[in-house]
Parts: sequence; C-alpha cells; structure tokens
Amino acid sequence: MTGPIEKALVVLSGGQDSTTCLYWALERYDAGNVETVTFDYGQRHRVELECAARVADFAGVPNRVLPIDTFAELGGNALTDDAIAVQPGIEETTGLPNTFVPGRNLIFLTFAAAYAYGRNIGNLVTGVAQTDYSGYPDCRAATIAALQQALRLGMDFDVTIHAPLMHRSKKETVEMARELGALPAMAYTHTCYNGQRPPCGACPACKLRARGFAEAGVEDPLLTAA
Amino acid sequence: MTGPIEKALVVLSGGQDSTTCLYWALERYDAGNVETVTFDYGQRHRVELECAARVADFAGVPNRVLPIDTFAELGGNALTDDAIAVQPGIEETTGLPNTFVPGRNLIFLTFAAAYAYGRNIGNLVTGVAQTDYSGYPDCRAATIAALQQALRLGMDFDVTIHAPLMHRSKKETVEMARELGALPAMAYTHTCYNGQRPPCGACPACKLRARGFAEAGVEDPLLTAA
Repeated sequence: MTGPIEKALVVLSGGQDSTTCLYWALERYDAGNVETVTFDYGQRHRVELECAARVADFAGVPNRVLPIDTFAELGGNALTDDAIAVQPGIEETTGLPNTFVPGRNLIFLTFAAAYAYGRNIGNLVTGVAQTDYSGYPDCRAATIAALQQALRLGMDFDVTIHAPLMHRSKKETVEMARELGALPAMAYTHTCYNGQRPPCGACPACKLRARGFAEAGVEDPLLTAA
Repeated sequence: MTGPIEKALVVLSGGQDSTTCLYWALERYDAGNVETVTFDYGQRHRVELECAARVADFAGVPNRVLPIDTFAELGGNALTDDAIAVQPGIEETTGLPNTFVPGRNLIFLTFAAAYAYGRNIGNLVTGVAQTDYSGYPDCRAATIAALQQALRLGMDFDVTIHAPLMHRSKKETVEMARELGALPAMAYTHTCYNGQRPPCGACPACKLRARGFAEAGVEDPLLTAA
C-alpha cells in the first residue's frame, strides 16, 4: 500500500487539451512534482510526439515516452492503420467516428498508473472531456470513475484520476488555458487529424479547435507561430 | 452498441489455470466460437508463448499473439526485467512478491476486450483467482468487477469477464480440470517461474502446482510428459 504523495503525472498527447491540463497541474502542484508521459502507440502523426516533447520542455517538466505496439497490431481504425483514411462523421456499424480506438484512454491511463505506481505519484491528469464532439465512450466521466476504481483495487494504490476538462466546452477550455497562462505553450501543440503544421483547417479537429478559440475571443498561438 | 454474441475469448498464458479456463469455455460455448489470445509482453520465459500455442492447437482453437512492449519499458519487476531475480516471499516496500507487474491483468483484459470488440466476442475468460497464493491485487473479484464496468462504459460494449477459478483453491482447480477433460492438455502447459521444462519443482509456482495436484489425488501430466 502506497501512501498518497502530492505529485502529478499528466498524460500529454501534445494537443491543446492535455497541454491545458499540464498547466492546470502546474498551478495545483509544485512544479518539481509534475511529470508528463506520452504514448508512442503507432499514431499516424509522429509530430504529436515532438509536440509533446516541446510543450513539456517549454513548461520545464520531464516527459517520458512509453511505447505501446499493441494498437497497431489490433488495427482496424484510422488513427493507427495507414490503410484506413480518416472519415468525417459517424460510422453506421459502431455509431462512432472511424478514429475510435477501442479502449485507448483506458490503456493510456492504466499504463500511466503503472508508471506512476513505480514513482509514487498519486495523481493522474488527463485531458478527456465528456463534451468532446466525437462522443468517445472512454472519455465519459462514468468511464473514468469506473477505471479509477479498477486501478485502485487492481494496483492496491491510492491513485486519483483528474479530468479537469471533463465538463468544459472547447470555448471554456480556451478560457481556462488563458487563465492558467497556458496560451504561449499552445504554439507548440498539435490538433490536426491530417497531421499538418500549420493545421489544415478543414478536418473536424481543426474546425473544433478554431471554433473554441473564436468563441473565447482568443487568437490561437498555433496559427501565428513561426 | 454491439449486441451480445455467444462467443468467448480466453486469455491464454499457457499455464495451468488459463488452460483449465479454455476447457471451461469449450464446455460452455460452441467450439467454433471459442478463441484465445496470448500476450507477448517481454516475459522472461518465451516458452510460455510456445505452451499457449500448443495448448490451443491441442484444443483445436485459434490462438492470436498480441505484443505489448510497454511493460519491459516500465521495468522494475522480476517477470520482465532480466536484471532482477525472482525472489521468494514478499517485498517489504510493496507487500507483494517481486514478480508483481502493476496492472498486468488490467492491461491484458483491456487489450483482450479491444480485440474482442473488433470480433464481436462478448465474453472474456481469465484464469485469475482471488485465492492465488501471491495475493496479486489485480486478481481480486472486486478488481475484475470494477474493470468490467470500466470496459463496458469505455467501449460501449456489453462485455462480460468470466473468472471461473476466482474462488477455487488449486486443488479445486485441478479437480475442475479433471471434470472438464482438460488434464491431457496439462502436458503442454507451463508453470515454473524459473522457466524450466521439466519444471524445477523448487520455485513457489512449481510448489503450488504440485500441492494442488497432490491434494486432488491427480498425477500432473506435465511431470510424465515425454
């Protein structure tokens, strides 16, 4: 049984949401007690890993990359399978976008917990949001609560999963980033489903990001980055 | 939302318990609807993978091997880290044996569920047992129940985790194997923590297995196998 220690591990994808969460953690915990973990799971866009490293570097926190080769082997989705193109909208068979990787966030958080266990870090921070336009079921509050229970029991470890964006709209997430001083770091983030920098502006992820910044009345630092 | 289909996926390690579970599944479901998955997670003893393949072949069911490279990268335990020797007994710092891989069964079952999701298999079968001498927290019934809930919510998938050995002693598991006709397959299984075939007979896993067979009054086919 490991006692709670006020350290936090942020699951950092290199995107807007997890970067905001990193700054949320930096406000809540001592900077020296915040670390990040990024998963190299064969994602289509390797630039995500570079973005995560740059964001962590900019924020002055460690970034550990952990490989997961299993998703690519499972295949069958557009995020890890090069043979499948990203499609807008919802697939009839699953009721989900074809970028859905079953269990992705469950796996990320479980490996993050295993890493945190070894480092006596009692807090995990994830950028999942129930309001996510895609409705990924592994982003729901009920899922995260059930997973936290499974992790606590399964590791005999008093771990807490924080999802500070869970009930926020994209607009509210941008406002939160501004309040936390996270906007400069946004220049290093990545969102585009087509892997483009500067972003394509046309894919669902780009459009969602643009709308959030527009509604918050904030200029996206990514668009003005050199 | 995927409807329940009476198919089963057995998490097959190549050991005594998961082999018994495979025969449990073969009694409960049509043989053509039973599959197995084995994880290649950098375990110290590659012979486990061969044993799983042989058991599945002997039972006439498919065996899919899925790689997981993450545990080896996490390190810090005797099952995947060559630099750490298997120690009998319990570690003072964790209250667990040093073969404990944090979250191992959580990860196995989550990846098994992701694989099952893609194949419309609604039942997962695992050999975990609460009575396991080591007291791994991820083998407890409460952990499995919490994980099932997290998987159902996180994948929007009506999956059920069956753990038919959960409350059985090793003696009872051997008796169950006999009743299910699983004993011949035991000749192909693997238990020894030192990776020896024939088994070393001295490690905790060998001793536990031997005691179970002795108490059930059954000769272990592994010991008489050519």
